[in-house]
Amino acid sequence: MHKIGICGGSGYTGAELLRILNLHPDVEITAITSEKSAGKTVPEIFPHLTAYKHLVYEPLINEKLLSKADIFFMALPHGASQIAVDYFFSNGKKVIDLSADYRIKNPSVYEEWYKLPHQKTATLAKAVYGLPELYRKDIKNAALIANPGCYPTGSILALAPVLKAGLVDLDSISIDAKSGVSGAGRKSDMVFSYCEVNDGFKAYGLGTHRHTPEIEQVLSSVAQSDILLNFTPHLVPMDRGIVSTIYCRLKKDITTSDVLSIYQQAYTNEQFVVVLPEGKYPDAKHVRGTNYCHIGLKVNKRTNTLIIVSAIDNLVKGASGQAVQNMNLMLGIDEAAAIKGLALFP
Amino acid sequence: MHKIGICGGSGYTGAELLRILNLHPDVEITAITSEKSAGKTVPEIFPHLTAYKHLVYEPLINEKLLSKADIFFMALPHGASQIAVDYFFSNGKKVIDLSADYRIKNPSVYEEWYKLPHQKTATLAKAVYGLPELYRKDIKNAALIANPGCYPTGSILALAPVLKAGLVDLDSISIDAKSGVSGAGRKSDMVFSYCEVNDGFKAYGLGTHRHTPEIEQVLSSVAQSDILLNFTPHLVPMDRGIVSTIYCRLKKDITTSDVLSIYQQAYTNEQFVVVLPEGKYPDAKHVRGTNYCHIGLKVNKRTNTLIIVSAIDNLVKGASGQAVQNMNLMLGIDEAAAIKGLALFP
Amino acid sequence: MHKIGICGGSGYTGAELLRILNLHPDVEITAITSEKSAGKTVPEIFPHLTAYKHLVYEPLINEKLLSKADIFFMALPHGASQIAVDYFFSNGKKVIDLSADYRIKNPSVYEEWYKLPHQKTATLAKAVYGLPELYRKDIKNAALIANPGCYPTGSILALAPVLKAGLVDLDSISIDAKSGVSGAGRKSDMVFSYCEVNDGFKAYGLGTHRHTPEIEQVLSSVAQSDILLNFTPHLVPMDRGIVSTIYCRLKKDITTSDVLSIYQQAYTNEQFVVVLPEGKYPDAKHVRGTNYCHIGLKVNKRTNTLIIVSAIDNLVKGASGQAVQNMNLMLGIDEAAAIKGLALFP
Amino acid sequence: MHKIGICGGSGYTGAELLRILNLHPDVEITAITSEKSAGKTVPEIFPHLTAYKHLVYEPLINEKLLSKADIFFMALPHGASQIAVDYFFSNGKKVIDLSADYRIKNPSVYEEWYKLPHQKTATLAKAVYGLPELYRKDIKNAALIANPGCYPTGSILALAPVLKAGLVDLDSISIDAKSGVSGAGRKSDMVFSYCEVNDGFKAYGLGTHRHTPEIEQVLSSVAQSDILLNFTPHLVPMDRGIVSTIYCRLKKDITTSDVLSIYQQAYTNEQFVVVLPEGKYPDAKHVRGTNYCHIGLKVNKRTNTLIIVSAIDNLVKGASGQAVQNMNLMLGIDEAAAIKGLALFP
Repeated sequence: MHKIGICGGSGYTGAELLRILNLHPDVEITAITSEKSAGKTVPEIFPHLTAYKHLVYEPLINEKLLSKADIFFMALPHGASQIAVDYFFSNGKKVIDLSADYRIKNPSVYEEWYKLPHQKTATLAKAVYGLPELYRKDIKNAALIANPGCYPTGSILALAPVLKAGLVDLDSISIDAKSGVSGAGRKSDMVFSYCEVNDGFKAYGLGTHRHTPEIEQVLSSVAQSDILLNFTPHLVPMDRGIVSTIYCRLKKDITTSDVLSIYQQAYTNEQFVVVLPEGKYPDAKHVRGTNYCHIGLKVNKRTNTLIIVSAIDNLVKGASGQAVQNMNLMLGIDEAAAIKGLALFP
Repeated sequence: MHKIGICGGSGYTGAELLRILNLHPDVEITAITSEKSAGKTVPEIFPHLTAYKHLVYEPLINEKLLSKADIFFMALPHGASQIAVDYFFSNGKKVIDLSADYRIKNPSVYEEWYKLPHQKTATLAKAVYGLPELYRKDIKNAALIANPGCYPTGSILALAPVLKAGLVDLDSISIDAKSGVSGAGRKSDMVFSYCEVNDGFKAYGLGTHRHTPEIEQVLSSVAQSDILLNFTPHLVPMDRGIVSTIYCRLKKDITTSDVLSIYQQAYTNEQFVVVLPEGKYPDAKHVRGTNYCHIGLKVNKRTNTLIIVSAIDNLVKGASGQAVQNMNLMLGIDEAAAIKGLALFP
Repeated sequence: MHKIGICGGSGYTGAELLRILNLHPDVEITAITSEKSAGKTVPEIFPHLTAYKHLVYEPLINEKLLSKADIFFMALPHGASQIAVDYFFSNGKKVIDLSADYRIKNPSVYEEWYKLPHQKTATLAKAVYGLPELYRKDIKNAALIANPGCYPTGSILALAPVLKAGLVDLDSISIDAKSGVSGAGRKSDMVFSYCEVNDGFKAYGLGTHRHTPEIEQVLSSVAQSDILLNFTPHLVPMDRGIVSTIYCRLKKDITTSDVLSIYQQAYTNEQFVVVLPEGKYPDAKHVRGTNYCHIGLKVNKRTNTLIIVSAIDNLVKGASGQAVQNMNLMLGIDEAAAIKGLALFP
Repeated sequence: MHKIGICGGSGYTGAELLRILNLHPDVEITAITSEKSAGKTVPEIFPHLTAYKHLVYEPLINEKLLSKADIFFMALPHGASQIAVDYFFSNGKKVIDLSADYRIKNPSVYEEWYKLPHQKTATLAKAVYGLPELYRKDIKNAALIANPGCYPTGSILALAPVLKAGLVDLDSISIDAKSGVSGAGRKSDMVFSYCEVNDGFKAYGLGTHRHTPEIEQVLSSVAQSDILLNFTPHLVPMDRGIVSTIYCRLKKDITTSDVLSIYQQAYTNEQFVVVLPEGKYPDAKHVRGTNYCHIGLKVNKRTNTLIIVSAIDNLVKGASGQAVQNMNLMLGIDEAAAIKGLALFP
């Protein structure tokens, strides 16, 4: 049994790691941290996690934690993650970082968007971007994974095949993304209170969301050409899920069916990506609680535009599920261990 | 007191007309039709409409209805509306048609999208498109109003000022629209049942939604140039509201603040359009139950794109409220009579 | 025009007063207070209240406020309300207090449940409990109204007729109440965040909710005998509304139809209470945004139990709407002014 | 691998069986029926069940189905289930019936509440009521299981310990139950459409719900005395979950802590029943998607009443999960196989 430590375990991604790993045959959770919940058991904070009544939160003291586990999941706020990740990584542990701190390869881009300098650039250079569908081979050999952001996961999986195929104008991409409320984390904030969110819908952060450079970095690499794009997040009155509707201008005449073939081929060996039949489009509810990404698309002949729609669960494929997928790859075990579950529908 | 007849009064737009007109000082409902609810009182069908316990549904028999009212609101399915509208209009009544039958000026475009020939093209030619912010003068003199669709109302109000100002490439417009479930009407359909919709989110009808040619017709007229655009509707787990996020490429360098000035000027005399301050974006919940349209926008300098977001209540400004606004204009009374209410929030 | 001051106007009941009074023909809001929002306009805090862009929040300084209005609505936290209410009342203003501070007649009962002594017992003695259906005559002559709590309003209206008729055992009453989330107020509290509440349902405060003694006080007075009862609140994933399901053992054999007759007679002159036909039960959604109370009931012959169900909107009949109803009565104007609106459905 | 047939697999309980059994190590689904979906694959009906793309719905023809599986789950409407269950059972198959047809032991009580005669009373006599916490030993030896109703599961687990202990008056029990919408099944019915249910709450079926005699039958057996009780179902705007709040008069003076001890002892060996600490009450969201039942309770000293609250997921512990638990017991394998999952929260 591999020993697992979770740093920052009182938020939704931490709870989701516990939910998922509870069904994992090869690991056990040996440590979990939280400053404000230190001394409490997991079910005192999360009554649904009844299987963990003997697991107690402790404060994050790197030195005390080091020997308690072999693999560390870091679910800390960005900034805080920089130092902690570097510590465990430098001391020979496998680290999967769910924060944004090790995703942006260029430290000045990181600083521009996150308003913080990066203090561990040597370690940053060693981090592997943990999107298995694109970087599985690197992940298998990595000791430090920068687990992708929720919005980037949905957007990149939706766009990678068409960019690889060179089918669209690179300056024409607009991503209109819609997220459930858990994307904002677990906290006391009036803006995310029930009465403010329920039965409403809104856009936010137009042109300024921090996931923009992450999406651009990966897609530029895929397209082998610099990409700037529009990314607009919205808040949906639902717990989980991200649906991304993406517009890009086609460079040549092609049918929906032919573009679908390109996607089916691109993802033919990917057990967590489902390319839907022509005329079908994804629903966040169909991936709720799962590690799946569903993709549908349509060529709009009238406007010469390709419209792609993807859906993921932001807490699973967009965070903790993908983190476990990365762990499985790093350990050389079944990539799908503990994340085989089908969606909770309805 | 003007006498009002409502044809097709057992759906959500019919109920919304009753809710709104109950507070109108100058009108009384004298007839309401429904085939399947004939013989029942309004509160038997809609328990919330307690003020109408003496109003009884009757079947729609044009000849019997003609003398019962001076003004007819038609909330019938498209197709069925063609004949009924023509009848009341030809017999000298004022008619406000909430269906799509008299919106599309070109009968062949109508037939292409609605899969039905138009049988009353002479009457069609006399219909005025009932968007007061664009066509107030014509509405005041009209006897037949084609009340705009819900999606078109939100999209057109969001785009008209920038198209009039000639700021954007006309072949670059993508409208990503999100609607509450009441847009689908009141009916028994598993697809819109609670468990299928709640805690989910999906796109539908990519490239094929019938509101597309209606939006294109009006915007082409505003821009004085033919426009084809992308229009993608989505289903939001909420009762009411449409939020439209619109992407268009700017032809010149301009700031968010300057575009906002253009909008503020365009709508300075419009009591139902609110242009939000820079950095603020609309929320469907802030217009819930009202005749307001809220608009926010942002110039994305990095991509040279203007992103506009508008929000309306699909049943009010997108249907019955705008219908009452049109009625008020036709009657020469206070344009805001009965539709002054502020949003039900939360 | 009567001049209205609102003390504590940045919460949901304050916003609801603004929404309602905006349609009132005889009043104008001349002052509104909020400590944390002082200096801001109303739409900066509540974007849906666009009609109030010239109304600016100010801190609550009793002396400065006194001359600004004739009638004061107090929407302050309990405790804080004691002093402020006393000040305006003692200086000759009409006061409607939406807090609990002047509802409990017995200061020691107040102290027991609210854990605070009552410092203004002389003023307390002059307060009239503002439930028009029971105390209309007193309200008309009152200068200080203790506006009823949300749960008590729904429970008392449901039980008063059967208690007056002496039909049930007074020691057998259990009230199982379910409230929308706005009952918790507008605040940053993780417990009421969207993700904690949505798609869930729970009981809270078993046997300890502060509305219990308020319900008991009024019902004991109605029954002219001391009543202790069970009151269990629950949290429903909806914005507004309280549905109370009430169980009481019948003292004699009686049919549902006969009990309904008693209710219809009891409320025959009450425009805001609707007694539903046999076999129909209330839905919170049918009173959403309104001042109505819907009541349905059933005699369970098998168990000799009367089951009564009532529904109100906690922010309207359960708070701000009833406060306006009380104001109308105090001013001798149309009792229904500004609160005639029908429910926003769906 | 045991071969599993599912009769009636296009509803929510059928889909839930597929979701759950997909993770079961010892079984495979070899047949599934649906009249209206015959010929379609499972993901064509349920896009979230991507693991079943080779499983095709077939019409239910008993003779053709018989040899295809060893164990049959029957998710047919009541009435229809009578004959089909009898057929497979009489032909030597293990049968788990999710309908109500084999739950009520007394055929005349069945007929009174279900308005149908029971045609297979000999088989009825052999059915075991599948509530493992009460009847585990019988279930292990059974060939025909009457899987409990959703409401009865939550109510019986909440009441059994206190009835066994003889603590309450048997004529004083009122069960106020609240269910998510999936309890109504998957169908086209306007009453359960999103806009009718969302942001509302209502009671229904007062005194007439068919689960009443089922609850009474089991509890009477537990108490060894005839019980009649009040049972009031309500509809909550959520997908899944039942919370039951139960009132019963105590026969003697006892503390909350002492009653909790009785419950902890009663369920000490039950892995799916969690008795919450004093002051904590269940939330439907904490059992969402799981086979758990959470129970909290409080003695109200003021009224001498015991108030018990339980929460289950109606589709799992209230239907398909419990069915799998019963299957596991019948097969003599790990009782928790495939139903170990923790709740999807949020």
